[in-house]
Amino acid sequence: MLTSAAYARTHAARFLEELKALLRIPSVSTLPEHKGDVRKAAEWLAAELKRIGMENVRLVETAGHPLVYADWLHAEGRPTALCYGHYDVQPPDPLEEWISPPFVPTERNGNLYARGAVDDKGQMYMHLKALESLFAAHQGRLPVNVRVILEGEEEVGGESIAKFIREHPEQLKADFALVSDTEMFAPELPTLCVGLRGMIYTEIEARGAKTDLHSGMYGGAAPNPFVALAQIIAQLKDKDGRILIPGFYDRVKAPDAEELKAWKRLPFDEEHYRKTEIGSLQLTGESGYSVLERTWARPTLDVHGMPGGFTGAGAKTVIPAKATAKISMRLVPEMTPQEAFSQYKRYVESLTPAGIELDVRLIHAGDPIVVGTENPYIQAATRALKQVWGTEAVFVRSGGSIPVVGDFERHLKVPTVMMGFGLPDDNLHAPNEKFHLANFYRGIESIITFFEELAK
Amino acid sequence: MLTSAAYARTHAARFLEELKALLRIPSVSTLPEHKGDVRKAAEWLAAELKRIGMENVRLVETAGHPLVYADWLHAEGRPTALCYGHYDVQPPDPLEEWISPPFVPTERNGNLYARGAVDDKGQMYMHLKALESLFAAHQGRLPVNVRVILEGEEEVGGESIAKFIREHPEQLKADFALVSDTEMFAPELPTLCVGLRGMIYTEIEARGAKTDLHSGMYGGAAPNPFVALAQIIAQLKDKDGRILIPGFYDRVKAPDAEELKAWKRLPFDEEHYRKTEIGSLQLTGESGYSVLERTWARPTLDVHGMPGGFTGAGAKTVIPAKATAKISMRLVPEMTPQEAFSQYKRYVESLTPAGIELDVRLIHAGDPIVVGTENPYIQAATRALKQVWGTEAVFVRSGGSIPVVGDFERHLKVPTVMMGFGLPDDNLHAPNEKFHLANFYRGIESIITFFEELAK
Repeated sequence: MLTSAAYARTHAARFLEELKALLRIPSVSTLPEHKGDVRKAAEWLAAELKRIGMENVRLVETAGHPLVYADWLHAEGRPTALCYGHYDVQPPDPLEEWISPPFVPTERNGNLYARGAVDDKGQMYMHLKALESLFAAHQGRLPVNVRVILEGEEEVGGESIAKFIREHPEQLKADFALVSDTEMFAPELPTLCVGLRGMIYTEIEARGAKTDLHSGMYGGAAPNPFVALAQIIAQLKDKDGRILIPGFYDRVKAPDAEELKAWKRLPFDEEHYRKTEIGSLQLTGESGYSVLERTWARPTLDVHGMPGGFTGAGAKTVIPAKATAKISMRLVPEMTPQEAFSQYKRYVESLTPAGIELDVRLIHAGDPIVVGTENPYIQAATRALKQVWGTEAVFVRSGGSIPVVGDFERHLKVPTVMMGFGLPDDNLHAPNEKFHLANFYRGIESIITFFEELAK
Repeated sequence: MLTSAAYARTHAARFLEELKALLRIPSVSTLPEHKGDVRKAAEWLAAELKRIGMENVRLVETAGHPLVYADWLHAEGRPTALCYGHYDVQPPDPLEEWISPPFVPTERNGNLYARGAVDDKGQMYMHLKALESLFAAHQGRLPVNVRVILEGEEEVGGESIAKFIREHPEQLKADFALVSDTEMFAPELPTLCVGLRGMIYTEIEARGAKTDLHSGMYGGAAPNPFVALAQIIAQLKDKDGRILIPGFYDRVKAPDAEELKAWKRLPFDEEHYRKTEIGSLQLTGESGYSVLERTWARPTLDVHGMPGGFTGAGAKTVIPAKATAKISMRLVPEMTPQEAFSQYKRYVESLTPAGIELDVRLIHAGDPIVVGTENPYIQAATRALKQVWGTEAVFVRSGGSIPVVGDFERHLKVPTVMMGFGLPDDNLHAPNEKFHLANFYRGIESIITFFEELAK
């Protein structure tokens, strides 16, 4: 009988072909015309979960796209893992920038190119293939208890899974969650993500005149909502990127000395990052903090768009009746979205320019997360990664937000192991998304080893 | 034999039916699907000019929509008028707000409702009907020499007529121009417009990262073009609306004491204007200047739109690679567009935030205009208006720009008499555009009387 890892290696070629079949389903959750494809991907995954030996496999219908649930709970006395992944993908636009078509998975230079290759179909599929290998090597059993929950709305806000977790926490009872939707800090450097920023996503609507006005006739008497928004935004951050909202930094908890020391040891070349990842003349942000601190452990504020008025080519001389700014803030421990939004709203309203009425709205919020590194699941993950990669795993944070991790913490009271195998240049949400094939295979082995470690 | 005015009165009903026929042609110059309709309106007008007795009637082909030219030059020793008008109209959107359809001219409450009713088909048609009445009363002759030039691109920038004036000034040789595309200051108050603001319409493009970035991953390190634009815009005007561009006010020439005194006598109720025309909480603009000064005789700066980034519903956490601000400034005598733009560009560039590259572009420019009130044409117009309306005409300025008036001044070296009969609530460029019918008829009589005055 093969070991689980040997089984995975023996069947690697088939695993890859199966993943390609999944990637061929254009399960773009935001586009109504792909609704059927999203369901097809869910059904495909449910069938595969059944085939490998998972039990109670079912589609959970929601107001949006279905969830896929499965479990195997016969490892008495052993911990229970909750494996999470998402089978929906971002739209593939702009199509013309893809070297091979987004839904025709193509191997090139040791990578698999396709929309969803790494985010998250490829990474989610590692879980399934690890489970298949474990079943095969353990006489149809698993070394730990496992629940699987897959969603089809991660790219559109994840409302259905949030509702399901909130309303049915008992159906997802587990000791920890496993999420493979993050990346490695660098190639060959096994990485556990132990912190995520939270966020509040807001809109400020500024209204001036009752109707659009001609700037020739009324310029000099009518308030201009865009000028008002610009005046407000200019007072939200100073030139060094420090947020000026009173009280905003009061609860910010700096990473401890050990975590900061570990970040300093990470292979990070600021000039390379500026040139290849950002591509701007210079980096910006608060002085006195490293790039990793600024993007992982400091709150930030960004403007995403300013709809309203005239945005076509050429000249139209309108003073728009209203304009909107889409503004989000990233939050770090121990900030809370509720408090941050109320500080922000109060401050913005205090800046209201003459003649303008403001409406400050919260669109979306998520808590910041820090997972302690001392829990047994992170410890087991660390040991497993060391075995498979031959290198000590690093602990990083991510500047982004994965709201479901906050839901796991809040409603299931479990920590999440964020063990991801993407690479920084995998082109998430962009043309030519890829997954490095060696990482797909080693990811499967890492998860196998992690689960076997937990059974020791 | 009837006098010209009596002829006009006798044929008023027919004049109106003819205007309705013209208004039924949807000559929307900006919409390619109406290209044929724009030409149809030009041909309709050419036929009418021929019918009433004008000579050398022709369509002048251009890169865009045709010009319509006609003349009658047999009044030896008498001045030559250049009658200008435009037969193109604004798009009618939003259609659902029209009480009667925009291209079904409808009489209601003494008004004629239709797109183009006042801007400018109805006002232009007054010229033609005045000429017809004069021909009828003067044995097939006119009391002055007349050239007519009509354009079909006023609502889209007027490039073709500008080119024609520049290249063929001898074909439009005249002593003065007559433009009826302005409004009366108040009902029953005959008005001559003797000043227009100029303008520069610009774009500032701000570029940060080489590509759109995720604000979670990169917020805190990547420059944000919208924040950069907001910081710049906030430094263009202070909170009182005073423009902060160095040197911008250096050439501003205040209206003389007499003009200012005359403006103070105009029937203007600031609170009524705020409520009914603007509809904002309060009026804005430079303190120490009246609303009329601020909108007629002071430079202003407005932001019209800020394309870029994410403008859809909901949340997308993008730090856009670039964003643009569409910004225009209104200019007053003796400012020049060239100097104003170079002051603006230099100042904006000096404000460039860290990590940002700017491109400051001029899209469109027009000179400010002031017509002296002492020239014989304005004087004759004043006498004519007094005769027809029984009230002394007022001299006003307009905050808007009519570029063709600058072209007449620059290339033909002639002053323009801006004698318009629109009303402030005529809904130009908006749903339910109208022309007060009494003004249509009295406008025709005013023009008849003006031309007869000039022959005295």
